[in-house]
Amino acid sequence: MSATTNGVEANGIKASAHRYDPDFTPAVIDLMGPKTQPRTRQVLGSLIRHIHDFAREVDLTNEEWMMGVRFINSIGQISTPTRNEGQRICDIIGLESLVDEIAHKLVIESGSDSPTSSSILGPFWSPHAPFRELGESIVRSPHTGHVALMRGRITDLVTKRGIPNAVFDIWQASSNGKYDFQDPENQEPNNLRGKFRTDADGYYHLYILHPTAYSLPTDGPAGVLLELMDRHPFRPAHIHLMISHPEYKTVTTQLFPRDDQYLSSDTVFAVKNDLVVDFKPLKGDPKAELELEYNIRLAPSTMKTISHL
Amino acid sequence: MSATTNGVEANGIKASAHRYDPDFTPAVIDLMGPKTQPRTRQVLGSLIRHIHDFAREVDLTNEEWMMGVRFINSIGQISTPTRNEGQRICDIIGLESLVDEIAHKLVIESGSDSPTSSSILGPFWSPHAPFRELGESIVRSPHTGHVALMRGRITDLVTKRGIPNAVFDIWQASSNGKYDFQDPENQEPNNLRGKFRTDADGYYHLYILHPTAYSLPTDGPAGVLLELMDRHPFRPAHIHLMISHPEYKTVTTQLFPRDDQYLSSDTVFAVKNDLVVDFKPLKGDPKAELELEYNIRLAPSTMKTISHL
Repeated sequence: MSATTNGVEANGIKASAHRYDPDFTPAVIDLMGPKTQPRTRQVLGSLIRHIHDFAREVDLTNEEWMMGVRFINSIGQISTPTRNEGQRICDIIGLESLVDEIAHKLVIESGSDSPTSSSILGPFWSPHAPFRELGESIVRSPHTGHVALMRGRITDLVTKRGIPNAVFDIWQASSNGKYDFQDPENQEPNNLRGKFRTDADGYYHLYILHPTAYSLPTDGPAGVLLELMDRHPFRPAHIHLMISHPEYKTVTTQLFPRDDQYLSSDTVFAVKNDLVVDFKPLKGDPKAELELEYNIRLAPSTMKTISHL
Repeated sequence: MSATTNGVEANGIKASAHRYDPDFTPAVIDLMGPKTQPRTRQVLGSLIRHIHDFAREVDLTNEEWMMGVRFINSIGQISTPTRNEGQRICDIIGLESLVDEIAHKLVIESGSDSPTSSSILGPFWSPHAPFRELGESIVRSPHTGHVALMRGRITDLVTKRGIPNAVFDIWQASSNGKYDFQDPENQEPNNLRGKFRTDADGYYHLYILHPTAYSLPTDGPAGVLLELMDRHPFRPAHIHLMISHPEYKTVTTQLFPRDDQYLSSDTVFAVKNDLVVDFKPLKGDPKAELELEYNIRLAPSTMKTISHL
């Protein structure tokens, strides 16, 4: 879901960096002592250089910098054990999605299939979701949405065979746009969460809700930043998945109904083409009005990512 | 006080950025809506691009990114109205000092004098410091330091004439390394703070303390970051000054005794050569053991800074 590119690295902007003391940034980086870990030196050195280059490139003013300081301080002040505003700010500038790409971009030989795309974890995954039996429903509390039968097969990217005993972990917001632990008055714990194991041929099926678009909380720094950028706070409707098996790379991802109005402007940049899905009407099942088929390809754990080359 | 430079922009590192989706960053930047202010678009566009370039350049891992998120959240959580940890983090990566350079680097014709160098404001300036008479002491509470007579002249950079009625605002930590509002048990309000007006010929004189080196607070994120970078938390001994007059550019700066052991490794990168001073023994003044002469050159307010070209 990429937009058109523009010439953000115009030479005129870059050149302005050279009007200031060229020795300053190396002096800051070189003050790191001999006991700095090599990876720390690499990461912090690059971060400091990019922050300095940014400040010189835009001739950052004292007022703008102080606005940034107040903004940084405000992020932690509103964060709680169930509200991670720092992560949310990273999400709306695309950083979580980029880190996800870096971690999961595999070295694929030309002509080969790709595994199912990964997408960001987000702040609402729970390590405490219960295992449920195939065919059970994760819909445990009242809602105003539409129930769907979700089914599919999890296969080996290389052999194309089904993977038995893969863990299919799914979580989603309810029809009011809230997850269980944001909404304890209306939802029991682990409503719309569950883990399932694929059968001997790699198949799974369960009942879910058709997902609903929702807004990020805008009463904190994320709202301030979105307002500055003249952007809406909505995520397209989505279902979270995390598929794992000891012999395969875990895929954390999200699925998006094709008809969602926010598909091309997801405020956290998580949409990828192969994650867009079609819910279809379902007849003859008293438990569901809709059906979603989604098959998942896992890469063997031995495959290399680009970042490990 | 610059260190030697190293080859931080090696081509090998830069090239790695191109292994990932080249359309992603432009898509994030281009999502800014039409009502975004042009300057906001410029600043946030550059910031997002540099943060993404940093993540790609070092192949930032999910664990490292989450460590960064927790670090960002921890900054605000420890900040209070009298503790600005966000500013302190910027200081130890050199950003406040760089913003100061950007704001104050003047367009100086070759052969001309430069005005007195600026340096960072820091978090301890107070808008409430009282005016005092020339010749008074800012030392109002008990201490274990050495009193010095400080005197000098404030002149016009261009005409070389003294500037009458310039405001000389000075603040410093006590001999225990703490400012008045960090240390209410030992220091009365406005101890070691005061504003003075130059006389008809631009001269000033007052009594101060020889300053003492001190450590930044290390019980928060700044301490974590300094530990990661194997750096000490000390600032060289210094005196803060802010010199203003309606017809001149305000100079905010700091002075540093030449014999301080942290002069070349100031943890906030505030030292500049013309700000290093010599305290000398003083005879015949019962109020002081030491003397410091420091003359200050102010640039007319009409002079242009490089960032305004």
